[in-house]
Amino acid sequence: MVVPIRIDDPADPRLAAYAAIRERDLVGRQGRFVAEGEVVLRVLLSPRARFRPESILLAPERLPGLMPLLAASGTAAPVYVAPRPVMSALAGFPIHRGVLAIGRGGPDPDPDALVPEGPALLLGLVGLANHDNVGGLFRNAAAFGADAVILDAATCDPLYRKAIRVSAGTALTMPFGRVPDGEALLALCHRHGLVPVALTPAGEEDIAALPPLPRALLLLGTEGTGLPEALMARSRRVRIAMAPGVDSLNVAAAGAVALHRLAGARLAARPA
Amino acid sequence: MVVPIRIDDPADPRLAAYAAIRERDLVGRQGRFVAEGEVVLRVLLSPRARFRPESILLAPERLPGLMPLLAASGTAAPVYVAPRPVMSALAGFPIHRGVLAIGRGGPDPDPDALVPEGPALLLGLVGLANHDNVGGLFRNAAAFGADAVILDAATCDPLYRKAIRVSAGTALTMPFGRVPDGEALLALCHRHGLVPVALTPAGEEDIAALPPLPRALLLLGTEGTGLPEALMARSRRVRIAMAPGVDSLNVAAAGAVALHRLAGARLAARPA
Repeated sequence: MVVPIRIDDPADPRLAAYAAIRERDLVGRQGRFVAEGEVVLRVLLSPRARFRPESILLAPERLPGLMPLLAASGTAAPVYVAPRPVMSALAGFPIHRGVLAIGRGGPDPDPDALVPEGPALLLGLVGLANHDNVGGLFRNAAAFGADAVILDAATCDPLYRKAIRVSAGTALTMPFGRVPDGEALLALCHRHGLVPVALTPAGEEDIAALPPLPRALLLLGTEGTGLPEALMARSRRVRIAMAPGVDSLNVAAAGAVALHRLAGARLAARPA
Repeated sequence: MVVPIRIDDPADPRLAAYAAIRERDLVGRQGRFVAEGEVVLRVLLSPRARFRPESILLAPERLPGLMPLLAASGTAAPVYVAPRPVMSALAGFPIHRGVLAIGRGGPDPDPDALVPEGPALLLGLVGLANHDNVGGLFRNAAAFGADAVILDAATCDPLYRKAIRVSAGTALTMPFGRVPDGEALLALCHRHGLVPVALTPAGEEDIAALPPLPRALLLLGTEGTGLPEALMARSRRVRIAMAPGVDSLNVAAAGAVALHRLAGARLAARPA
């Protein structure tokens, strides 16, 4: 049973994990993450989430609308209620949505364990340092039924607050693992019979004409420098055709186009 | 010839247009817009831009790298140079990129004048209030060779600072016009023989199986409420297939997938 706990003092130690959120975004938070907004909270409380909340902090006016969700979830996390000015003073910036939670991540799964038997579609991110792009790509990976996302060491943390929000919570559901670099991504492909598909404006093949690939890993790099040459040289190089004179898309948009093409017949038939 | 003008006083009246940028973002700026960052400045100074700079403001350390661009552009706009702390004090927030410009928009073109003869692909935005999404959709429209973007009155201004930045400057090149509402978008379609294609998770047709449409206008609404029913009822309702249990994509990502499909053979062959 959920019994909300009212707190009016921003210095209350039970709210310590919510203090100075932006500053701690920058230094890491020892395995914890901040979930922000109702969309993300709903995912965090759902059985699909890979992680669990340690605590939840709501503005009083959000409580009535969210009580059914909290009750149905069976969460054991304490639910704190604090006036919005207390939330904002504590966090260090305006908490417009009035909905926060602290979750605890876990050890990254072994990437080899994330590759399924049979049909497989994975996303491999190389050097993506922008949280909006990484969040957007998780959302696209989930939408198009990818099995997992594999990140190189230079790609930012999908459990960063803003990445979770932009992912619409899918950073909490989509399995992801880490490898050191692009070489390790290729090695993963070789071990599991995945075709490495490198998306690049200079690709020899147009993704619109690509035959079905039952087992593939889509490689995406930064918009500026792109994927390392050494990685592309040993991958299937594929382009997205664009209008004359245009040579770049936002990487999350490019990922959406490519994942939609690669997913093909894997996608759901029309919902009834 | 470009002769940069050094200014050290944030109160100098020549810099008045750069004062309190964020506050004025909110109240409008009488036909002016703020261009931010080198990518956007390059577009604004190119022949592709539909608008011209009134003035340019650079941090001193950015000047050497940008002088060739400024000289080649033949711009008649004054180029002011102010130390980064002066730029930030003036603007009211940190100007990390050290590159700003003020441009002047113009009257919106007549939407009817934006519909070409022959093959045509237009994008129609209904109620999109998020500047990131509108900026992203302009970038996608440009990438996939759309002829124009038509906005309803509830869609936000593509010449808002952040929308321009997210558009990678394409908000300054892609023609756009305004109509009051979705009804007017449909009327535009009827006048010009454009097939209105409404993107919705409940669409009867899968966009992956859509036959080529030589003249089409893609309608996009908000992620939350979607397109108005009355509009969808008189459009070709098309869906993007997604994984089971998923029913939403970010609208800019959905637009990328749909525009790529609709553009089809319009897109460039592989660059040499």
